[in-house]
Amino acid sequence: MGSILPTDQVLNIAVAGLGRMGKRHVHTLVGRVPRAKVVAVCSTWDNEVEWAQEAYQGTGIQVFNSYEDMIQLPSLNAVWISTSTDVHASQTLAAINKGLHVLCEKPLSTDLTEAQHVVDVANAHPHLKVMAGYSRRFDASYRAAKEQLAGIGAPFVVRSQTCDLLDDTGFFVRYAARNGGIFVDCCIHDIDLSLFYMGEHLLPKSAFAVGSLQHHPELGPLQDVDNGVGIVEFWGGKIAYFYCSRTQAHGHDVCTEITGTHGKIMVNLIPRTNHVQVAGANGISHAVPEEYWQRFEDAFATEANEFVASVLDDEPVPVKLELGVKGIIIGRALQDSLLSGEVVKFNEKGQRLDGKNSL
Amino acid sequence: MGSILPTDQVLNIAVAGLGRMGKRHVHTLVGRVPRAKVVAVCSTWDNEVEWAQEAYQGTGIQVFNSYEDMIQLPSLNAVWISTSTDVHASQTLAAINKGLHVLCEKPLSTDLTEAQHVVDVANAHPHLKVMAGYSRRFDASYRAAKEQLAGIGAPFVVRSQTCDLLDDTGFFVRYAARNGGIFVDCCIHDIDLSLFYMGEHLLPKSAFAVGSLQHHPELGPLQDVDNGVGIVEFWGGKIAYFYCSRTQAHGHDVCTEITGTHGKIMVNLIPRTNHVQVAGANGISHAVPEEYWQRFEDAFATEANEFVASVLDDEPVPVKLELGVKGIIIGRALQDSLLSGEVVKFNEKGQRLDGKNSL
Amino acid sequence: MGSILPTDQVLNIAVAGLGRMGKRHVHTLVGRVPRAKVVAVCSTWDNEVEWAQEAYQGTGIQVFNSYEDMIQLPSLNAVWISTSTDVHASQTLAAINKGLHVLCEKPLSTDLTEAQHVVDVANAHPHLKVMAGYSRRFDASYRAAKEQLAGIGAPFVVRSQTCDLLDDTGFFVRYAARNGGIFVDCCIHDIDLSLFYMGEHLLPKSAFAVGSLQHHPELGPLQDVDNGVGIVEFWGGKIAYFYCSRTQAHGHDVCTEITGTHGKIMVNLIPRTNHVQVAGANGISHAVPEEYWQRFEDAFATEANEFVASVLDDEPVPVKLELGVKGIIIGRALQDSLLSGEVVKFNEKGQRLDGKNSL
Amino acid sequence: MGSILPTDQVLNIAVAGLGRMGKRHVHTLVGRVPRAKVVAVCSTWDNEVEWAQEAYQGTGIQVFNSYEDMIQLPSLNAVWISTSTDVHASQTLAAINKGLHVLCEKPLSTDLTEAQHVVDVANAHPHLKVMAGYSRRFDASYRAAKEQLAGIGAPFVVRSQTCDLLDDTGFFVRYAARNGGIFVDCCIHDIDLSLFYMGEHLLPKSAFAVGSLQHHPELGPLQDVDNGVGIVEFWGGKIAYFYCSRTQAHGHDVCTEITGTHGKIMVNLIPRTNHVQVAGANGISHAVPEEYWQRFEDAFATEANEFVASVLDDEPVPVKLELGVKGIIIGRALQDSLLSGEVVKFNEKGQRLDGKNSL
Repeated sequence: MGSILPTDQVLNIAVAGLGRMGKRHVHTLVGRVPRAKVVAVCSTWDNEVEWAQEAYQGTGIQVFNSYEDMIQLPSLNAVWISTSTDVHASQTLAAINKGLHVLCEKPLSTDLTEAQHVVDVANAHPHLKVMAGYSRRFDASYRAAKEQLAGIGAPFVVRSQTCDLLDDTGFFVRYAARNGGIFVDCCIHDIDLSLFYMGEHLLPKSAFAVGSLQHHPELGPLQDVDNGVGIVEFWGGKIAYFYCSRTQAHGHDVCTEITGTHGKIMVNLIPRTNHVQVAGANGISHAVPEEYWQRFEDAFATEANEFVASVLDDEPVPVKLELGVKGIIIGRALQDSLLSGEVVKFNEKGQRLDGKNSL
Repeated sequence: MGSILPTDQVLNIAVAGLGRMGKRHVHTLVGRVPRAKVVAVCSTWDNEVEWAQEAYQGTGIQVFNSYEDMIQLPSLNAVWISTSTDVHASQTLAAINKGLHVLCEKPLSTDLTEAQHVVDVANAHPHLKVMAGYSRRFDASYRAAKEQLAGIGAPFVVRSQTCDLLDDTGFFVRYAARNGGIFVDCCIHDIDLSLFYMGEHLLPKSAFAVGSLQHHPELGPLQDVDNGVGIVEFWGGKIAYFYCSRTQAHGHDVCTEITGTHGKIMVNLIPRTNHVQVAGANGISHAVPEEYWQRFEDAFATEANEFVASVLDDEPVPVKLELGVKGIIIGRALQDSLLSGEVVKFNEKGQRLDGKNSL
Repeated sequence: MGSILPTDQVLNIAVAGLGRMGKRHVHTLVGRVPRAKVVAVCSTWDNEVEWAQEAYQGTGIQVFNSYEDMIQLPSLNAVWISTSTDVHASQTLAAINKGLHVLCEKPLSTDLTEAQHVVDVANAHPHLKVMAGYSRRFDASYRAAKEQLAGIGAPFVVRSQTCDLLDDTGFFVRYAARNGGIFVDCCIHDIDLSLFYMGEHLLPKSAFAVGSLQHHPELGPLQDVDNGVGIVEFWGGKIAYFYCSRTQAHGHDVCTEITGTHGKIMVNLIPRTNHVQVAGANGISHAVPEEYWQRFEDAFATEANEFVASVLDDEPVPVKLELGVKGIIIGRALQDSLLSGEVVKFNEKGQRLDGKNSL
Repeated sequence: MGSILPTDQVLNIAVAGLGRMGKRHVHTLVGRVPRAKVVAVCSTWDNEVEWAQEAYQGTGIQVFNSYEDMIQLPSLNAVWISTSTDVHASQTLAAINKGLHVLCEKPLSTDLTEAQHVVDVANAHPHLKVMAGYSRRFDASYRAAKEQLAGIGAPFVVRSQTCDLLDDTGFFVRYAARNGGIFVDCCIHDIDLSLFYMGEHLLPKSAFAVGSLQHHPELGPLQDVDNGVGIVEFWGGKIAYFYCSRTQAHGHDVCTEITGTHGKIMVNLIPRTNHVQVAGANGISHAVPEEYWQRFEDAFATEANEFVASVLDDEPVPVKLELGVKGIIIGRALQDSLLSGEVVKFNEKGQRLDGKNSL
C-alpha cells in the first residue's frame, strides 16, 4: 500500500488557480494526501476568491487574490499550478525563484521556447522538484498496461483518444484562444502516452492532422476545431494516431490501444462509470463518466501523493519535466498541419524541416 | 463532493484489531478521512503489537495490547472494532459503557440473543452512534444500483454471491470455528443486500441451503463447507438466492442481480481489476481483483467518512444497527438448513417454527 | 466445416406441428439442411393448415391436418415432432411403429412412466434413430464451454437460468396446463446442462424450489408460477441451482456458469443480440435477443444437420434418449417441491424417498 | 425471416476460383442458399481441380480447369467470381458478354480505369445483375448499426479497422504483388463502411497514410507494408480514419465506430468468438475469431441469398457496382500517400489534384 503516514515532516503546499480543477486539487490534498498540508490558495477572479474565503473558513487555508503575494508566504514549501495555460511558465519560474517545489499542470506552455526555458531553469535548480502534470501516468489502468507491456513484444502502434462530453455552455471556448488548440490542449495526454508506451526517446518523423467543426463554429476564427484526427509517425517504424473531441454525446471517452508484435493492450475501450448494468425494455445499458474527474480522481490523488513523497524523501519526480517539451513539439506539429493541410516533417534529430516549432 | 474539510472539530478514533483488516482501517482513516484522527490501536497478538509499534512510530498513534486499556484513553471519542467475530459484541458493549461511538464490523455476533442485546443497549444510549459495518452499502456501484431501483418496477428476486479466492494457506480456517459458518460469515453481506434492495422490512418465510467441501475437508468437523448455495423465501413473494465460496481460482468474485417486474440491475457480473484488457495468442483477457480490498477499498473510505460525519454532525448512522440482527437470523437459518438438510420455516412474524434462533 | 453436400441420398422428413417452432423447423430444414428434404407438415389447427397450404404452395411440401395420415406417406423417412408436450410420447411411438426416425422436442412427456416407455420402445428398435431435442447441446458456445471443461478442474457447481421475455399476450399460459410446470417445461434445459457439464451419470440427492407469481396470477390455479428458483444437490458433492422466469423485461436471458476446482466457465452472462453498442446521452447500451430463436437459430440448424447425418450415415444420435428421462425426474422433483414447500429427497440410486415420480 | 423457399425457379450458379474463399462460397451456396444450385466450379491450379473432382463427386457440380470453358455451360445463369484480384475485371466482362449475372469479390480491379470500364459495360446491360462483393454490408451487426444511425444525429467521424491474424506461412504475401497494396486490398472494406454510414455521395478532399513493416520485410520491395494507418478527409467536414494490419497476435480484429453529433455507434470493439468466458488463475478471458470466416460466415450467406433473390425476383442488386469504383479511388490515394509521404489532395469534384488515379 506504500506508507502514507504523516510524521513530523509535512509539506506545506499552495494551489494556484481556483477553477474547477484547482478546487479539486485542494479537495484531493486535504482528503487524500496526509503528508501535505494546504496552507494557501489564490485566484485572480473575485468570485473565486470570495467562494474560497467562505468555503475554506476555519480550515487554516489562506486565500490570496495574487499569485505573487501568495508565494511570499514564508511557511510555503511547494505550489501546484492549476491556472490557465498562458501563465503556467511564468508562475513556474517565479516559484522556482522563490525556492519552491512545483507541480505544474500540462502543458508547460503553448510556446516551445518558453517551455524549454522552464526546463533549463528547473535543471539549474536540481534541489527543487519540478514536475509536469501528466496525470494519466498515475492512473492504475495505464500503469497496469505499462507493467504488461513486455507481454506484447515490441509495441509499434498506439491509438489514443481524448473525447470530452459536449458542454453546451461552451465553457471551454473561453480558454480556447490561449490553450494552443485542440492538439496541444487535449491531445497532449495522448501524445505523452504514445511515448510512455513506445519509448520516451522516440523522435517524430512526420505529423498530419485534419479537423471538423460540429458544435462550436466560434472556434473557427480562433484557428481551432472541436474534433480532430491526427497521425504521428516516429523514426523507427512506430506510429501513433489520435482522436480528440469536445463534443461527445455520451461522456468522457478516453481510451488507448497499444499494438505490439505479439499482442495488444487496450485501456478503457468501453468507458463505464461503475460496475452497474441495467436491463430493461431498451436492452442493457451502463453509465459513462461525465468528465475526467470521475475517470481520473484516483490518479490525481496518486500523483499528489507521489509528488509530495518525491519532495519529502528527496527522490526523483515520477515524470521528467523534459517530457513536457516533447509533447508540445508534437502537439504543435499536429496543430500546424491541421491549419496548413500539409504534412509536417522532421529530420532524424526530431527537428522540423520547415524550421518552425522545434529546438 | 461533500465537504471533507477538517476544521477545529476532529474525531479521535481507535482501531481494535490489527489483522489484515484492522491495518487497512488505520490506513483508510489516516489517508482518506480528514475529519478523523487515529489516536490508538490495539491487538492481543504480540507480533501485531510489535509490528504496530514499529510502523506507527512518530505518528502519534498509541499501541495497546489490551482493548480494555485502550478504551480508557481519555481523548478517545470512537472505536472501530475489527477483531474476531466472537468478541464483537462484548467490545461494542464495553465501548458504549465508556461513552464511545462504535463502528463494528459485521456480524455483531454469531449468537442472536447477544446481537439483540447489543442493539438494545445501543438504543438505550441514543446519544452514541453505533453502526453495523455493512461496507457494501457504501460502494458506489451498489449505491448506483439502489438509485436506479425505481426503473425496474418492483424488485422480487435477488441473486447475490460472495466468492473468495482460494487461499491455499487456509488462513481463514483458523477463524472458521468462531465465525458462525459460511452463511453467517460470508453470506451475511448478500443477505443484507437482498434486504437493501427488496425491503428492509421483509420477513423470511423459508430457508434452504446445501454445501460442498472441495478444498478444505478440515471444515467438515467444524460443521461448515467451503462452498454453499442457499435460497431464502420472504413473505410477500420475494426470493433471494445466494452462492458463497472460499475456493475460487480466479479471484474475488462478488456480484448481485436484482430482478424486478420491469427490468433487472446487475452489479459486477464480470469482475475486473481495472480498465485494461490484453489480447494475445490466448484470446483477450483481463485481471480480476484478488480480494475484497481491491474491490471495496473506496467503500471503506466512504463508510469511515460517513460514520465520522454522523458523529461530528450528530446525524443518524447510515446503516441501522437493527439490520445486523436480521442478517444473523437469516444467516443462521441457512447454516442450520445446510446441516439438517431440511427447510427452515418461519411464521408470518418471521419467527422460526422450530423455535430456534429467532427472537 | 463438415461435409453437408447432398448426393443421391437425401432424408425425406416431415414436421409435426406448425406453431411458431414447427414453422421455424421447416425454415431451418429448407434453408440450412441440404441432406434433408421436407416432404410433409401437419397440424390439427385449421388456421395453421390453411397458412401452410398457402405458404408452401409449389414447394412440394404436402400439408396434412392429421398426424396419423401424414405418417402413412410412403416416401417418408423421418419426422420432427414439434407439437404440444402432451402428445410427444404418443406421436413418437406411432412414428417408431411406422419405422420412422424421430427427433422429438423436449420433454418427451410430463409423465415419467410414459417417457420411460418411449425409451424402452426406441431401444427395441435399434435401427431407428430416436433423439431428444436438447437443442442447447448444439449451440457453439455451450460446446466451446464443454471443450474447455478440462481447464477448470473438477466441475462441482452449475448455475443456469432460462429467463424469457414477458409476453403480455400470455401466449404460453394456454399451454401451461399441459406442459408440466415451469421446472419441467423451462428448467429442463438447465437441468440437462448441469448433467452435460458435471456428468451424465450423476444422481440427485435432494431438490428444493420456491416460486413467485408476478405477472400471471392465472397460473396459480394451474399450480404453477411465473418465476422459480431451485437447487438440486447430487450425490458426490455436486450442486446445481436454477432460475426460470417467464417475465423478463429485457429479453431472452439464458446463461450458465460452471464452477470447478480450478476455474469457472461462463456462458452468456450478459446477453447481446449482435456486436453493436450505442453510446448516447443515456450511457452505452446494446440490444438483447427477444427470444430463443435469435439466440439458438444456429443451434437448431446444427441439431438438424447432425440428426440427419446420424440417420444417413448410421451413426449414434448425438443426444442419448435416456437423458430425456433423467431431466424429467429432476424437473418433476423441483416442481413437486415448489408445491409442497418441502425438500424432495432421493436415495443413492436416485430413487425418491417418497416413492413418487421415480423409476 | 424472408422467404427462402425454392420453387420451380432456381438459379444455376458457378463459382470461379477454388482457393479458401471459393470453397467456402460453394459451401455457403449448397448449405444455405436454397434458391441456388451450384452447377460448376473452376480453377487454373491443378491441385485445386483435383481436390474438387474428389470432393464434389456425385453432387452434380462440374469441375473445370478453365474459366472460359466453364462459362460456356448452357445451363448457367450466374457466376460468383472469387479468383485473384488481377482477373476480376476481365472475368466479369467475359461473364457479362455471355449474358451471365455476376457477383464479383472486391475489389473490381486495382486499376481504376479498368474498374470503371466494368461499371460502364454492366450499365450497358441493365437486364444483368452485376454486384460488388462488399460482404460486410450483409453482416447483421453492420446492418443494425445502419438502422440505428438516426439516433446519433449527423455522423461525421468513422474509425474502422481490418486487422488480420498474423499468418507465419506468409500465405497472403504471394498475392501481395497483385492485390494493389494494403489500402486497396484490406482497407477497402473500411473505406466502403465510411461511405455506408456517412453517405455514399461523399467526395474525398485529402488522404494521408503511413505504414510500418513488422513481420513481413519481403513486402518492402513490393512497395507495401504489413501495418498501415490512414486518414481520409471528405468535403463537408467528414473524416474517416483507418488501421489495417496483417500481423495481429490475437486474431481477426475488425471494428468500426461511427461518431455523430448526438451519439456514437460501436461495432465489435472487443472481438469475441462466442458467448463463453473462462475464469482462472490468469483472470478472465475469451476467444477471438481466427479469421474473417468465423466473423462473417453469416454475412456471406445473406449476401448470396440476396444476390440470388435480386436475380430471380428482378430487383436491384443490394450493393451498387459504382461503389466499387469509389473504394478503389480512395484506397489508391491512401496507398500513393503511403509511398510518397505526401498528402493526396482532391478538388471538390473528387478529382485528384495530381491528376493520378481519378476519373
